[in-house]
Amino acid sequence: MAKNQGTPGEFDLIARYFAPLAEAEDGAFGLTDDTAVLKGPSAQNDLVVTTDTMVEGVHFPAETRPEDVAAKLLAVNLSDIASMGAVPRHYTLAAALPDPVDEDWIARFAKSLAKEQQRFDVVLAGGDTVSTPGPLTLTLTTLGTVETGRALRRAGAQAGDAIWLSGTLGDAAFGLLARRNSLGNVTPEDRNALVARLDRPTPRLNLGRRLRSTGLAHAAIDVSDGVVADLGHLCEASGTGAVIDAGNLPLSDAATRILEDQPGLLDTVLAGGDDYELLFATAPDADSAIRALSEDLALPLTRIGRMHDDQADGTPRVRVLKDDGTDVTPAGGGWRHF
Amino acid sequence: MAKNQGTPGEFDLIARYFAPLAEAEDGAFGLTDDTAVLKGPSAQNDLVVTTDTMVEGVHFPAETRPEDVAAKLLAVNLSDIASMGAVPRHYTLAAALPDPVDEDWIARFAKSLAKEQQRFDVVLAGGDTVSTPGPLTLTLTTLGTVETGRALRRAGAQAGDAIWLSGTLGDAAFGLLARRNSLGNVTPEDRNALVARLDRPTPRLNLGRRLRSTGLAHAAIDVSDGVVADLGHLCEASGTGAVIDAGNLPLSDAATRILEDQPGLLDTVLAGGDDYELLFATAPDADSAIRALSEDLALPLTRIGRMHDDQADGTPRVRVLKDDGTDVTPAGGGWRHF
Repeated sequence: MAKNQGTPGEFDLIARYFAPLAEAEDGAFGLTDDTAVLKGPSAQNDLVVTTDTMVEGVHFPAETRPEDVAAKLLAVNLSDIASMGAVPRHYTLAAALPDPVDEDWIARFAKSLAKEQQRFDVVLAGGDTVSTPGPLTLTLTTLGTVETGRALRRAGAQAGDAIWLSGTLGDAAFGLLARRNSLGNVTPEDRNALVARLDRPTPRLNLGRRLRSTGLAHAAIDVSDGVVADLGHLCEASGTGAVIDAGNLPLSDAATRILEDQPGLLDTVLAGGDDYELLFATAPDADSAIRALSEDLALPLTRIGRMHDDQADGTPRVRVLKDDGTDVTPAGGGWRHF
Repeated sequence: MAKNQGTPGEFDLIARYFAPLAEAEDGAFGLTDDTAVLKGPSAQNDLVVTTDTMVEGVHFPAETRPEDVAAKLLAVNLSDIASMGAVPRHYTLAAALPDPVDEDWIARFAKSLAKEQQRFDVVLAGGDTVSTPGPLTLTLTTLGTVETGRALRRAGAQAGDAIWLSGTLGDAAFGLLARRNSLGNVTPEDRNALVARLDRPTPRLNLGRRLRSTGLAHAAIDVSDGVVADLGHLCEASGTGAVIDAGNLPLSDAATRILEDQPGLLDTVLAGGDDYELLFATAPDADSAIRALSEDLALPLTRIGRMHDDQADGTPRVRVLKDDGTDVTPAGGGWRHF
């Protein structure tokens, strides 16, 4: 559309801050065209595409550092790509900017994006910049490739499968509470560690690729809505039910200390989102293969539960059991989205 | 990212209104996954990608019918694809929706989008829906394919080339004036015709494809910023200058009547955007081939000027000449963006 009707100086903004991010891709034409022309994936590859929007004041507080906004926007998109076992290639960025444009903010945002795209080997291929009377609104769309027909899916888990989780759980949710000063006693070090996990999630791209190439994972999803909710999505797609052993959930040192102090916050670990770890199902006898993979990637992979047949009898699809075999009953009487 | 942290009932909205738009594409998984898996273009094709954002109150007035918003959002994106001579395949939609969600608006928007995607043979492949305290903000990203290395570009025009324009010029700009009641004397019929061109632009996909497949066009661009501005973009990319013959500009009957009444509005025709016609350069002797193409497509194609060598002497890149050979001098002392 009329690229100039948005922000005054849009062409300047793009040329100055975003064109350098497209330099590595000839087909992006330095962002001077409306459309990028990219080498298609070969006949051996499918194309994957995912899109996410972040709104200031909704998905991040206005005072969030632009460096963190850029890193998270890209990371949450790449996390979706990781969950498919795909390789990210290009992305587009659509930015609705409040008037007047805060050029220093944009400059810092673009610099961070440049750093992160290099880290994950993706290239900006195009975008649009418009003016908005509302809050800063950023939409990032990533294109990636995956061997034809081999993308990891939510569907595919079977009764008896083991359920695994990468990294640690609940840090981002605790980070959000900490930022809102609702976490109670927490050391400054723990607070910083938790907030960093909220602001700077790590897309598990290497893990996703290896789970796909080895064929170890029957199904996978990234944990963005909370482990119970996302396992629920995976179960729904696979037609299974699942049990999580609460005692096996992988926790960071900071999260462990918080739960020792406030055991009631287990709900937050189970329902909180934004961890962007990968949750996946494997055959029940894959332990040694997964352990080897974990060592190879230097990334904790923890067995947290098992799949069973779906019981269409009113039992929740996803149950969380304590060590004594009784159900963890969430404070609100149900898990979010269940 | 956390797909649920936006609008309450987002999953419902998607399932009810948008999932039907993805039905024809197995790889969109009914929009239940975060990522779509699409058949890659073959080795014979490049991938093209373009993205556009429309903000309520900026790109369309709040009272615009949702049917028109959907049609225009898709059309402006497809117009970029048309200008490359590419074939659109899939699109993603990211919607930031004011709370509370106006479900009737969404339903009408989705129904129109369904109709338009059928008309242009594209399929929704994914999206994101979030909540915003600001105005409705819609970002659409289209993926298409084009024969490897054959995409039409802005670069490629040569001195001596003829410059052509599809359809008619200025209708959308007059439609905008009419909507703002700033157009003076205009019949209700003319008003409706002009506003329709503003609200419902037609992406010239067939023309773009034929210009590419025949090799007739040396360079092309869609007119979104105004004919002078967009020809300027094309000249800049091609390293040429250009002359437009004002007397040859193709005008609708409504626009002709308005200019007879108010000749000063020629500026509006030249600087106004949003027509989404294709502007392209051909060899100077392509008239009969272009005439045949015009007949075949039942679409007027008008020769409006010629390319010359760039004169780096302060002469504007794009000059507009009257029939007597003198320059049309824009009221503001310069063309927008020049």
